[in-house]
Amino acid sequence: MFESAELGHKIDKAIYAAEVPKLREALLEAQMDLAKLAKFPVIILIGGLDGAGRGETVNLLNEWMDPRYIQAHGMGEPSDEELDRPMMWRFWRALPPKGRIGVFLGSWYTWPILNRVLGRTQTADLDQSLERAKRLEKMLVDEGALILKFWMHLSKDKQEKRLKLLEKDPKTRWRVTGRDWKRFKQYDKFQIVHESVIRHTSTAEAPWTIVEGYDARYRSLTVGKVILDAIRKRLVEAGKKINEVHAPPPLPSIDQLDVIKTLDLGQKIDKKSYEVELEKYQGRLAVLTRSPKFRDITVIAMFEGNDAAGKGGAIRRITSALDARYYGVIPVAAPTEEERAQPYLWRFWRHIPRRGRLTIFDRSWYGRVLVERVEGFCSKADWMRAYSEINDFEAQLVRHNIVVVKFWLAISNEEQLKRFKEREKIGFKRFKITEEDWRNRKKWKEYEHAVCDMVDRTSTEISPWTLVEANDKNFARIKILKTLCRQIEAAMTKKS
Amino acid sequence: MFESAELGHKIDKAIYAAEVPKLREALLEAQMDLAKLAKFPVIILIGGLDGAGRGETVNLLNEWMDPRYIQAHGMGEPSDEELDRPMMWRFWRALPPKGRIGVFLGSWYTWPILNRVLGRTQTADLDQSLERAKRLEKMLVDEGALILKFWMHLSKDKQEKRLKLLEKDPKTRWRVTGRDWKRFKQYDKFQIVHESVIRHTSTAEAPWTIVEGYDARYRSLTVGKVILDAIRKRLVEAGKKINEVHAPPPLPSIDQLDVIKTLDLGQKIDKKSYEVELEKYQGRLAVLTRSPKFRDITVIAMFEGNDAAGKGGAIRRITSALDARYYGVIPVAAPTEEERAQPYLWRFWRHIPRRGRLTIFDRSWYGRVLVERVEGFCSKADWMRAYSEINDFEAQLVRHNIVVVKFWLAISNEEQLKRFKEREKIGFKRFKITEEDWRNRKKWKEYEHAVCDMVDRTSTEISPWTLVEANDKNFARIKILKTLCRQIEAAMTKKS
Repeated sequence: MFESAELGHKIDKAIYAAEVPKLREALLEAQMDLAKLAKFPVIILIGGLDGAGRGETVNLLNEWMDPRYIQAHGMGEPSDEELDRPMMWRFWRALPPKGRIGVFLGSWYTWPILNRVLGRTQTADLDQSLERAKRLEKMLVDEGALILKFWMHLSKDKQEKRLKLLEKDPKTRWRVTGRDWKRFKQYDKFQIVHESVIRHTSTAEAPWTIVEGYDARYRSLTVGKVILDAIRKRLVEAGKKINEVHAPPPLPSIDQLDVIKTLDLGQKIDKKSYEVELEKYQGRLAVLTRSPKFRDITVIAMFEGNDAAGKGGAIRRITSALDARYYGVIPVAAPTEEERAQPYLWRFWRHIPRRGRLTIFDRSWYGRVLVERVEGFCSKADWMRAYSEINDFEAQLVRHNIVVVKFWLAISNEEQLKRFKEREKIGFKRFKITEEDWRNRKKWKEYEHAVCDMVDRTSTEISPWTLVEANDKNFARIKILKTLCRQIEAAMTKKS
Repeated sequence: MFESAELGHKIDKAIYAAEVPKLREALLEAQMDLAKLAKFPVIILIGGLDGAGRGETVNLLNEWMDPRYIQAHGMGEPSDEELDRPMMWRFWRALPPKGRIGVFLGSWYTWPILNRVLGRTQTADLDQSLERAKRLEKMLVDEGALILKFWMHLSKDKQEKRLKLLEKDPKTRWRVTGRDWKRFKQYDKFQIVHESVIRHTSTAEAPWTIVEGYDARYRSLTVGKVILDAIRKRLVEAGKKINEVHAPPPLPSIDQLDVIKTLDLGQKIDKKSYEVELEKYQGRLAVLTRSPKFRDITVIAMFEGNDAAGKGGAIRRITSALDARYYGVIPVAAPTEEERAQPYLWRFWRHIPRRGRLTIFDRSWYGRVLVERVEGFCSKADWMRAYSEINDFEAQLVRHNIVVVKFWLAISNEEQLKRFKEREKIGFKRFKITEEDWRNRKKWKEYEHAVCDMVDRTSTEISPWTLVEANDKNFARIKILKTLCRQIEAAMTKKS
């Protein structure tokens, strides 16, 4: 695997001096075209061995390119705000928007590798991490990103030589630490893991480029040229990219049976029982969320449903039981300009709360497979891959002990019509009904089909959907409160 | 001061039950109009005594209003990311955008009060904090915000009674801590400070509303009505608000002398000395920013200048000496949609770096008194108040040990013309010259006047401008590097 990177590649000074100015100018031009087109971001990962020139490469790229449109991130120790959230949150918050370049020194591979070499995890854990990394990268690429992964390699001899050289020079001595030598002693152990990681994660969409790191000139020219070439190629493709899939949609609807139709929407609760139950479950929610154990978990409650299904009312029944300091409601509308410059999940990642908090999403990342699918706001390929991307996203949340509770509020076609008409009549509710609602209503069947596919594909064991029969608002509210309480209780019991 | 809030205000149950539904509906409607108009944010501060119902009030507001458009913030202990930046950063990051309501439990008054009562600071320090708070609020109001400050008061007897009541009830017992009783013992001491704070900061634009906190019904109705009334009034005004000032502009230009004209733009450095000096100062900068002491400070370097004055080239001479992981360059262009929904300084606050980092702003908050003034993008009142707002902003940075280095790069009219023409000729520089540059050039005099006013008004002792004679690029670059090194050295010496 590393053979080509142990050949002793070298570039002599004269050639380097002749090549660099041309390369720099070409890189600058490519960077400007990238910024002007602003169609895709460039994500560069720099990994490899101590002393193989990772830091130097990052600095060099920043030096060669326009520092205004490239941003380097040293992903060292996470902050407390980062530790309070899933590991990937810190990468999401640092992702470059379209038209920009982000360079990551340390990546989603760093900790899985280290944990495996230090024996904190098993091979199976490492493999799982790599699978996740691959899926993440595939998603980013499908969202348009250009991902370039560089691995700076040194043979064992050369690593020793480089570390000694760095130590000898008073200007670079500070860079070699005891940790570096300790790792050098484990060279072979590291190499086994490195090789496995590179082999498993050199995918078609984001392969590793292994670069011999000993000769700075060779290393620099190689990295610069690979980047230039990749950006140029991608700029050409960017104009004509078509995401066509020929796979059939999830499940054709050929009879009158589907998961929504089997719901008994007639379920009701009388006013008196409602009031008793409401007090009971709001009380329970109030106690649960104020218990000291709640400080160790995070809760995300997510609401989707037909228009006028009563999401807002249900959300208010939850929030009125909570301490306002520890929850937030995120109403999901059209993405802002900054959000449109990022992969579609970015605008949800930015609202993932810290530990001890509860966040309610009023509509969610499922917009991708509902409104965006039905209205044709994204291609078929885009929404078809979204199911597994969403499952991956939620799996990350759940792995971080986040309780993810997903509600679909279902009402019948007739009930919706009744509510729309009521809304039009009542003054202060009129703002809640728009032309768009009437338009969506005409596509009832398409939406129902999309909902069924969504439930089939994303109601997972770790993060199941709760389908809520919502023709009777009171019935729906109690079912929601009860479900939420139970899932929080389950999480707090598990934790302790 | 607290007389009216010790009268034993009470609302009986029947009146409350009759009033609340109307109030809630009216609040919801006001909130919807606020969101639809999206012209100003509402900032609500809740302060006052333990047991006076601060938390209950916040929860009640969230319950009464649409939780999607109101967000409460409990400003408790700051996170490490917050401690690494000036105190106000955490408030800026939580400010509601236009059309939304933000409720702060704990505010910029909390710590100054506490520090004074606990004897950590003197009265003079408190007074200074209050002056700053007043200026901050004035700025927010001038930027359009509606600020509502509530102080929940209890007489000494009533506070004791409330704390005992809370302790007796098993449902609220957890809320009364030893700290509350300790503070109760210092009731009189706290009251002296509270009174002084309220007196000094009840300004015309953001007065305190003191509310007797004993009776929950009285407290709730009062707060609700004050908020409703204020939002309604402000909604009416929002359409017709004109910011007219009749004060003369800073300094009329009646002769041919100004700070820019006195610069000796002919200053030069020959190529050989340039190369020697460049290596020297880049080396020094490299060593300084890699020293362990640098981890304790923060550096903000800010570049303004005539078009084509060489900001980009100067910035690259700095960044190439730095470790890419620890710096960022923020190119300032037109604000994004999310930025336009906030006060103009917000988009700079969001980029204030953590300790141990260096951030370069390529153009800056001075756009307000330069391009926005000259092009008429903001009113005269807006740019005239900006000078002191900017001074306050920079003072906050400096108080937090942030080194703020401000460069104005000046070239002559003839030199600019020469560079524009060159840029048009050279292929890969052509993107750097636009129609707008030619348009701006026609307003050379107005810009020069604005620059002189800016220097006069914002070159302060704590944060002086460095005027850079930039007709000779090499001379400019060395002056910039030298200045930056010296200011970093001074800060690191001061710190140790």
